[in-house]
Amino acid sequence: MLSRQIADRLRSYETPFYLYDINLLRQTLESVTALSSKYGFKLHYAIKANYDPHILSVIREYGLGADCASGNEVRCAIEAGFSPDGIVYAGVGKKDSEIRYAISQGIFSINCESLQELEVIDRTARELGKVQDIALRINPDIDPKTNSCIDTGQADSKFGISYEEVMANAALIKSYDNIRIRGMHLHIGSQIRELHVFEYLCDKVNAIVDCLSGLGFNFDFVDLGGGLGVNYDIPENEPVPNFASVFTIVNQYLNVSGREVHFEFGRSLVAQCGELITRVLFRKDTATGRKLVVVDASMTELIRPALYGAYHSIENITPREEGKDRYTIVGTACESTDVFNQSLTLPVTSRGDLLSIKSAGAYGMSMASRYNLHDLPGAVYSDEFDR
Amino acid sequence: MLSRQIADRLRSYETPFYLYDINLLRQTLESVTALSSKYGFKLHYAIKANYDPHILSVIREYGLGADCASGNEVRCAIEAGFSPDGIVYAGVGKKDSEIRYAISQGIFSINCESLQELEVIDRTARELGKVQDIALRINPDIDPKTNSCIDTGQADSKFGISYEEVMANAALIKSYDNIRIRGMHLHIGSQIRELHVFEYLCDKVNAIVDCLSGLGFNFDFVDLGGGLGVNYDIPENEPVPNFASVFTIVNQYLNVSGREVHFEFGRSLVAQCGELITRVLFRKDTATGRKLVVVDASMTELIRPALYGAYHSIENITPREEGKDRYTIVGTACESTDVFNQSLTLPVTSRGDLLSIKSAGAYGMSMASRYNLHDLPGAVYSDEFDR
Repeated sequence: MLSRQIADRLRSYETPFYLYDINLLRQTLESVTALSSKYGFKLHYAIKANYDPHILSVIREYGLGADCASGNEVRCAIEAGFSPDGIVYAGVGKKDSEIRYAISQGIFSINCESLQELEVIDRTARELGKVQDIALRINPDIDPKTNSCIDTGQADSKFGISYEEVMANAALIKSYDNIRIRGMHLHIGSQIRELHVFEYLCDKVNAIVDCLSGLGFNFDFVDLGGGLGVNYDIPENEPVPNFASVFTIVNQYLNVSGREVHFEFGRSLVAQCGELITRVLFRKDTATGRKLVVVDASMTELIRPALYGAYHSIENITPREEGKDRYTIVGTACESTDVFNQSLTLPVTSRGDLLSIKSAGAYGMSMASRYNLHDLPGAVYSDEFDR
Repeated sequence: MLSRQIADRLRSYETPFYLYDINLLRQTLESVTALSSKYGFKLHYAIKANYDPHILSVIREYGLGADCASGNEVRCAIEAGFSPDGIVYAGVGKKDSEIRYAISQGIFSINCESLQELEVIDRTARELGKVQDIALRINPDIDPKTNSCIDTGQADSKFGISYEEVMANAALIKSYDNIRIRGMHLHIGSQIRELHVFEYLCDKVNAIVDCLSGLGFNFDFVDLGGGLGVNYDIPENEPVPNFASVFTIVNQYLNVSGREVHFEFGRSLVAQCGELITRVLFRKDTATGRKLVVVDASMTELIRPALYGAYHSIENITPREEGKDRYTIVGTACESTDVFNQSLTLPVTSRGDLLSIKSAGAYGMSMASRYNLHDLPGAVYSDEFDR
């Protein structure tokens, strides 16, 4: 968002790199924390979206907890200064060593995804002489109307325990001495833009809470996960996601009798504050007449287009010629699938121009690889320019 | 391939890890070098497939050159002991700094993919006071009958220069003083199992060589790339790929008047020698009755299933129960797409069993990421067991 103003200064940086607009990150965090405190909702940041140390330090300032997807993410959160009593560890496949580490750190909750995992947590906590607070991650069986690659809450998905299974095994689940079941966790997926999906989620949660309360489960909190989508198509129209709508829906439709309500936002907090800045290496045409722009970024820095067919808005932030043209933007990796956009209208674009690939703050750097032995990209923060 | 015999010893290793059968790698290298020397073909190894240092050192013993996809891969090859005069640098998006480095090292050839790149190579070589040998990478416009994600030689792809463009710009291309055009490079794609595709390639190369020779280009060598597929379905049926068939076809159909013929094999040399060994963390059933096996590997160690829908044969190498069952094998990553196999019959599989994901020696470790802050997987080599 700030790239036009500072484009000239960016020319001297080694590309590709991530550029983070820390002011936009702060605006986003101010928005979400102001709104959530209005309703008394608690917030966690899903650090898998981006665990850049500076991003984490800013998020921590706003008092959010951390939602972690591995033992290393728990360690990362603690090292970034998140208090263990605000750390949640969720994930379908936790190793024994990761469970042991999380318990030893006294984290707020392990979100448990199978009956077998309950056993392992209980046994490990006993060995450590502890009682671990957990949440049951329950599969809500809701179609999030997004992309099948990023939905996580349908009955057939790998995530969570079905509530039928919880009901059928209620006595067993309540029998563990070294586990305290404090919460219920439901996450329906990612990049949800049709907000009525959250109404369904609330209905489902109400029913499940009633049902499990009747079976003697005493939940203190309900964790609704994250899932709020961002505007990848026209990011400048919605730099801060519409948290108000989600909170209004949840406040209106959720009926959980005074229990705490938690959210775990990842993408919606950090996607729009990040851009991947890349330099045009070559322009060439294919035999079929397609005009290629070869940039020095690739799927190794941002895999979402190759992995999910994801769309990212792209801007030429240093155009030097009159007119416009239609281009295919391709990356450097030795893979045909390494294409950022098949057909994009840009100002006439030449070798040396800088392009900004927008909305790349979430699942960009955190999914980077060193395929083709590419160096991992660096990061530049807008607050460096303010000093 | 050796996993059954040493499965018990593998139990003590921290999973997931790559297990490399160095004997099979040597058999493969002995096969390909014996066959290629029969025809006088020269071989390069495409190190993007796997740049494990031990794998590289074994391959180097057999006298192959190195095909590199980035400046860092050139550096890696040199550090692994490959002689610069056997190193080729190909890639659609070479940075200026990478071109400079490659020229300064005196490598055998830069395979050039656009007219603009020719200019940059010439100018850089002049600045360094050198004349750089190059090959023109020409887009052969052949459908390799594989997966659109891994074909690279169709007219509309991002790779190479069209031969029409070379013809139209022949005088310009020959005019550069600091470039010596030594070769022609064509690569039609990857994982090619229908070998008659190589007949088409030969026909096309014959025609292009004739045409360009007529325009006064004096090629010393023709580089046919790689592309030979491996048997992912039943790897034990074909542990060493059928190099003989490709060489026989090329020997029969290629007519390049005494020029050297080069191949760049990647996948076919290393895929079958590698397995990803992973431990079963949990067994659980979905509400729909699907039986899930949650393993401690994920798309962060092997992304091919998530990225391409690629199939890998999977074996339970430590089964302990009678009978068989049908499972979905899912990874630990917080992504619905992180599934290794949707429906696989295995011996009854339980927590603690080790699974081998086969044919993972190519594009496994080299595409690994640290998403979810997973540690990069370790490597175990069969020759450690022989000592």
